Amino acid sequence: MNHSDPHKLIDERREEIFADYAELLRIPSISALSAHDADTQRAARFVSEMLRHQGLEHIEVIQTDGAPLVYADWMRAPGKPILLIYAHYDVQPIDPAREWTTPPFEPTVQGDVVYGRGVTDDKNNLTGTIHAVGALLAARGTLPLNIRFLLEGEEESGGEAIEHFVRTQPERIASDIVMVADGGMYPNQPTLCYGCRGILYTEIVVQGPQRDLHSGGFGGVAPNPIFALAEILTQLKDSQGHILIPGLYALMSPISVSERALWQTIDRDFDSEYRAQIGTEVLTGETEYGVIERNWARPTLEVHGIIGGFQDEGSKTVIPASARAKVSLRLVPGQTPENVLPLLRARVAAVTPAGIKATVEPIHGGLPFYTDVTSPAFTTTMAALSEEFGKPAWAVRSGGSIPISAIFQEMLGADVFCIGFGQSSDGAHSPNEHTSVSMFHRGVHALARVIDALGAMPAV
Amino acid sequence: MNHSDPHKLIDERREEIFADYAELLRIPSISALSAHDADTQRAARFVSEMLRHQGLEHIEVIQTDGAPLVYADWMRAPGKPILLIYAHYDVQPIDPAREWTTPPFEPTVQGDVVYGRGVTDDKNNLTGTIHAVGALLAARGTLPLNIRFLLEGEEESGGEAIEHFVRTQPERIASDIVMVADGGMYPNQPTLCYGCRGILYTEIVVQGPQRDLHSGGFGGVAPNPIFALAEILTQLKDSQGHILIPGLYALMSPISVSERALWQTIDRDFDSEYRAQIGTEVLTGETEYGVIERNWARPTLEVHGIIGGFQDEGSKTVIPASARAKVSLRLVPGQTPENVLPLLRARVAAVTPAGIKATVEPIHGGLPFYTDVTSPAFTTTMAALSEEFGKPAWAVRSGGSIPISAIFQEMLGADVFCIGFGQSSDGAHSPNEHTSVSMFHRGVHALARVIDALGAMPAV
Repeated sequence: MNHSDPHKLIDERREEIFADYAELLRIPSISALSAHDADTQRAARFVSEMLRHQGLEHIEVIQTDGAPLVYADWMRAPGKPILLIYAHYDVQPIDPAREWTTPPFEPTVQGDVVYGRGVTDDKNNLTGTIHAVGALLAARGTLPLNIRFLLEGEEESGGEAIEHFVRTQPERIASDIVMVADGGMYPNQPTLCYGCRGILYTEIVVQGPQRDLHSGGFGGVAPNPIFALAEILTQLKDSQGHILIPGLYALMSPISVSERALWQTIDRDFDSEYRAQIGTEVLTGETEYGVIERNWARPTLEVHGIIGGFQDEGSKTVIPASARAKVSLRLVPGQTPENVLPLLRARVAAVTPAGIKATVEPIHGGLPFYTDVTSPAFTTTMAALSEEFGKPAWAVRSGGSIPISAIFQEMLGADVFCIGFGQSSDGAHSPNEHTSVSMFHRGVHALARVIDALGAMPAV
Repeated sequence: MNHSDPHKLIDERREEIFADYAELLRIPSISALSAHDADTQRAARFVSEMLRHQGLEHIEVIQTDGAPLVYADWMRAPGKPILLIYAHYDVQPIDPAREWTTPPFEPTVQGDVVYGRGVTDDKNNLTGTIHAVGALLAARGTLPLNIRFLLEGEEESGGEAIEHFVRTQPERIASDIVMVADGGMYPNQPTLCYGCRGILYTEIVVQGPQRDLHSGGFGGVAPNPIFALAEILTQLKDSQGHILIPGLYALMSPISVSERALWQTIDRDFDSEYRAQIGTEVLTGETEYGVIERNWARPTLEVHGIIGGFQDEGSKTVIPASARAKVSLRLVPGQTPENVLPLLRARVAAVTPAGIKATVEPIHGGLPFYTDVTSPAFTTTMAALSEEFGKPAWAVRSGGSIPISAIFQEMLGADVFCIGFGQSSDGAHSPNEHTSVSMFHRGVHALARVIDALGAMPAV
């Protein structure tokens, strides 16, 4: 082995690393659409080959009822902590497809920007962690601590398979520290996440007439399920962003004074930044709370999709039989899908207009997670990140949901943190998802540095 | 010519008449979908051939910017009135397609019922009027009055071509009486319609963020256009059916005492009938008015379709950039699309939440129409209908819209009435549209009898 500096090796391998990333991006591993099941299988096989190439051992593609899990490890550092690395190889659907200006599954580089579905969520972090470990191993022939990889392919559609695996076989992934390589960072600002919101994702289905009706013959007498759905939605959240579900806020754990102090160190004008990203003059939500608190530490309710009746070109004078909406709640510590679903159902039942039947069907759920920001693993990682970037990292929560973080915390008793090198302006989940090529590369350096630093900690 | 009794001839031609009806039903002449433009052309040619076969003259397929008009006449009764017969050969879209239990464009007879798109709206009345005239001509070699046919192929999608034709070339269809062979009757109850509601059909488009956003990153701060649309819809009509558009009700012409008296002669429990047809325990709308008045003589506002965000299988955690709904108002005498559109736009503007842009785009409109129920043509037709069915016909308004009726009335100065032999339980505009085969046949008899009776009136 000629190299002893893993960072020099990472630079030399720049094109090879990007080629693996690009090949993974070409696989349309959309977990929410069953038509892409063969693609998630293909992505899992490709990821397992990448792990093998980078020197990981005990590689296994674990078939499940959904998309497969991919496991690998390197356990040759006795007495050293075990670091579990998590990432996901699946991606969001591409709709609205017509808004993409490049092919979503052909990564397209323009200057320092690469476009494509999954470039920032989460194929960058998945590829980056594997290559960071691979470069450390290739440079030194060893690692400073034990490493396990557990990668999934259903993060964007519920993550049932990994939850089942972690809940039923936690001994197979016993670990001291969990690095969830998902989520991202603020633009050019190293960021480490110690908490995520949970989620309860549901579909509300509203039934009115027994069949579609002619609005001439029945307008003015027949209940219209689209109106009913509109009424229900406006009774779930008011125009000031207050969720109108009785009992919901009472479940929240209080926010500590020390955490609020930590928020003060973050030097960023979130308000104008959100406005610019959203392209709006005003922000919505509970104005009595700052935007950080609204997005990180308050529950929110959103409607993601609505459909009912006639949508084609032209006109059809119908009163439809049914309408439906996809509605989710983001949950904060103290709230769980299990304790919130009955409250949502009770509220929908209470506000459903006469003549209408409404049901609330859960589609998926995830617990919120929250890690102590004074733990050694967390502070060590913060220091390594700060060193790589030459400026203090920020400790943040995420408004998004990484349900598996909470399950790792519950089942392994490990310190869990989330790290990622996609930037908040990358348009995750949107058409024209993109990220910085140089930040992707820098992420590999940062991850190698974090692993080195965690290996230098005393054994737990 | 062997026959002198047109009614005997109609019975002898029963299969031939049904074959023409069935062949027209097999043409998917959906005017709202441009993919079916060739089919509307084909339907127009087929209808013109039917007119030729039945002895009509001066047959013309008139090309327009949309679907063609079909004209024909028989003007060999000098000194007699001119009767203009209108019907339409186009049909509604078939969605939701999966709910059809027979192929929508293959007429399927089960017992006395025929299923298919257009069987009751309006290919039954179109075929029936042509064959009623054909049988009279074939039986007697002459007609008791002058007849013009003007048939259109855009009734279900705005009817712009016929409106343009009637407004610009009214002299080509100068007439004394107009029979709009559209709409229907109560089950087994002869019915003649002297008024229809108008319509203003619009699309409300709501724009929020400049692009689709991740609900984790932006939930709680970004305006959600689906919520905004739900809020707007609930601010257009309250849950008691009152339309919340300032100025709308003030435009209404008063309803006469004599018309209200006429309503009293209609012996029918509309309330429970509507409930049964809708399949609901309760009716909606302004309970301070009876169901006849709500459906015939009050403006109503309905939403026909709504779409926004993610609708596929599974879940996507997106805050969409936009959402839209198709919304119409049914209009009563005094209200026009032109005087109502600005009121609707002002209301939408007034209730649009901050951070959201909303536009109201008109898709089509039609005036209401109202004819004097004491006119000779109307009372003569009522008497002929009563004779055919052996019971008194009812004079009714329709809650639906036949905008061309109002234009005929305005441009020709004629007495206009609507007649049709589809029954109100036939499911017009819905999946599994159906009608009675024997009532279709009886309609041909009734139409021949009405034409005979109108021919016996003194010249106008």
